[in-house]
Amino acid sequence: VRATSDPPNRLVSGPARTGSIRAHNLALLLRTVAEAADPPSRAALSTATGLTRASVSSLVDTLVAGGLLVETGVPTRSGVGRPSTGLALDASGPAGLGLELNVDHASALIVDLSGAVRAQKTEYGAGSSGRLASLARDMASTAREQGLALAGAALAVPGLIDSGSGDVLIAPNLGTRSALGARGFADLVVGIGAATALPADRISVENEATLAARAERRAAGPAGPRSFLQISGEVGIGGGLVLDGQIYQGRHGWSGELGHVTVRPGGRPCGCGSDGCLEQYAGQQAILRTAGHADDRAATIAERARAGEPSMLTALAEAGEALGIALAGALNLLDLDAVVLGGLHAELAPWLAGPIESQLRRRLITARFALPAITPSALGGNASVLGAAWSVLDRVIDDPLAYLRDGRTD
Amino acid sequence: VRATSDPPNRLVSGPARTGSIRAHNLALLLRTVAEAADPPSRAALSTATGLTRASVSSLVDTLVAGGLLVETGVPTRSGVGRPSTGLALDASGPAGLGLELNVDHASALIVDLSGAVRAQKTEYGAGSSGRLASLARDMASTAREQGLALAGAALAVPGLIDSGSGDVLIAPNLGTRSALGARGFADLVVGIGAATALPADRISVENEATLAARAERRAAGPAGPRSFLQISGEVGIGGGLVLDGQIYQGRHGWSGELGHVTVRPGGRPCGCGSDGCLEQYAGQQAILRTAGHADDRAATIAERARAGEPSMLTALAEAGEALGIALAGALNLLDLDAVVLGGLHAELAPWLAGPIESQLRRRLITARFALPAITPSALGGNASVLGAAWSVLDRVIDDPLAYLRDGRTD
Repeated sequence: VRATSDPPNRLVSGPARTGSIRAHNLALLLRTVAEAADPPSRAALSTATGLTRASVSSLVDTLVAGGLLVETGVPTRSGVGRPSTGLALDASGPAGLGLELNVDHASALIVDLSGAVRAQKTEYGAGSSGRLASLARDMASTAREQGLALAGAALAVPGLIDSGSGDVLIAPNLGTRSALGARGFADLVVGIGAATALPADRISVENEATLAARAERRAAGPAGPRSFLQISGEVGIGGGLVLDGQIYQGRHGWSGELGHVTVRPGGRPCGCGSDGCLEQYAGQQAILRTAGHADDRAATIAERARAGEPSMLTALAEAGEALGIALAGALNLLDLDAVVLGGLHAELAPWLAGPIESQLRRRLITARFALPAITPSALGGNASVLGAAWSVLDRVIDDPLAYLRDGRTD
Repeated sequence: VRATSDPPNRLVSGPARTGSIRAHNLALLLRTVAEAADPPSRAALSTATGLTRASVSSLVDTLVAGGLLVETGVPTRSGVGRPSTGLALDASGPAGLGLELNVDHASALIVDLSGAVRAQKTEYGAGSSGRLASLARDMASTAREQGLALAGAALAVPGLIDSGSGDVLIAPNLGTRSALGARGFADLVVGIGAATALPADRISVENEATLAARAERRAAGPAGPRSFLQISGEVGIGGGLVLDGQIYQGRHGWSGELGHVTVRPGGRPCGCGSDGCLEQYAGQQAILRTAGHADDRAATIAERARAGEPSMLTALAEAGEALGIALAGALNLLDLDAVVLGGLHAELAPWLAGPIESQLRRRLITARFALPAITPSALGGNASVLGAAWSVLDRVIDDPLAYLRDGRTD
């Protein structure tokens, strides 16, 4: 098991060691194809990378043979000399298995190298952690049937994960319901390995908010925001950060703990031992409790708000104000392009946006010059599990030689 | 005038365009020498960069001829074949002029490419902004006398700077005392250009806290923290961020506005229009006011604290608590290695550290696993002006070809 941090340009920056030049250049070509608007020709790749045409041809042949690139067969525009074909990521090559374990559901999803979702399965209800291995087995066999090679799996967890060992240190909201401790997670990963025939070093456990941010970054594409905070709200409130285009995880992988930012010192006590944490004002249980529905999960928060229930509207105004205070702090520190409201808070954006903006206008010192966009996520509840699958493929693109060397697993 | 953002690995990452390969490789070699523990030989540079020996020799010759590298003449360890000499940054080559304009002083300082401070001059007292051009003239002529080529100048300002135009948008604490508006800063830069014979595009205006963080990063070296927040406290409280080894400035260059993070919603009103800002509890004036010395600048805060004055000790405990609340928020979000207390707060660290740590233990959710280091800056009041000078030299190292092409200015 390993939890990976996002190495900024791991293979394409810094001095290249002699022994890794081939790995470097393979990654450079694959990344260039991945980011190109149209399938580039070998000649275009030579121009874009500075590698000689002969090197490009030899490296491209390796990537095609390894199932990472395909010739599109469509002659590109140049028109001079022999017809050149374009190159694209191979949609029948490696696949990433994304898994998600959350408070009230478990999900599994397969994405191919072109970014297409090839299959997805979700099961709802408490105690669903036990079903995760069977979901993984199901998706692994679907991938096989579709001719895809499973490159790895990543499990999204709402908790703090040690980036060295991959151990889940705390997952308070999950623990309450699923009784999964750090030991339980280790067993779960063993179960996923057995179900998928993946070796332990190709299965990672990662924070769900960070993975959601990865999915948002990919969905937004190169024209999207370079620096943003992705809020991933359910019972707890997580945050994922993309800064200057890179996933930012912090020293231990513990960044983005927005739910435990103090918004009211001396305020409501939190399960974490502190007081006045954002989660106690803007988390799912907190909103329900403030509205007087602590024990009632029959109607959703959004349904009650749409029905105009006054106590729910008051609770949402309070939640928005608390979010605004926390976000003003984050924005004063980080000067972000955007904040993306994900999970629960995407659905609640119509009621939260006003109070958030009002706090930003008051508390963000640069508000008079530029107010960052506060937008609901377009990925819905899928962001984390999508991000998990894409994290597997990002690792293939960052280090294709390792993938080619280790071979397929089926 | 331009205010530069720090482009992470601007020249050494991503696909190299054919036309910029020479620029890329010159930068790669220079950066490799700059970061080497001992002067590397040409052969070692070839190994480290993956460039052929012939390419290395030709590029090194260019860098030596341009005054960026020197042969150290000391044979390196290899001992086989003809004696090889080591290469080091040329301490008699380009120099960076750092300038600082603050509430009660103006400073100028010259650093050479080896990182040595070659001259420094500071003048104290209000209204010192008018003296900045003459300080710059003084340093420029000193650099010339020492045989150094002035590569550029950077001015550190405690305010918000537009990273596109370099305009100073607001510098509230400076404005109060110096009556310098955005227009005044533009005139100041013209004056610096006239005094130093530097063209406008080689003079930048940058936030002083960000520059202080740059200086801390350089002083700490490769073994220092990869991600930290540098507090730059005087009348206001600024913050500079280094994240994953890179200066982080945010979308507009407005990151690090720690002084306006809300620590007490509904609390003391702030000049920025908000309430409960950190600056109103932990800034210089706020501490003096709380201790009952609003109009008395005769004895410093630290002197009164050392004398055991009870009202000052109470004010410092309150300041530390407010800092702890703001820092817990920043650390929950960013999972930093360290927080560096700079400026005023470096001197006050003995009284602030206890209350800060106590708040972190309560409010930082990962405190039980790892408490980040809270350390006073070792650079004293010089951090910003040092960072300004080093920012000029960092640009030379990031793009030596531009420096070689534009030539010396004297």
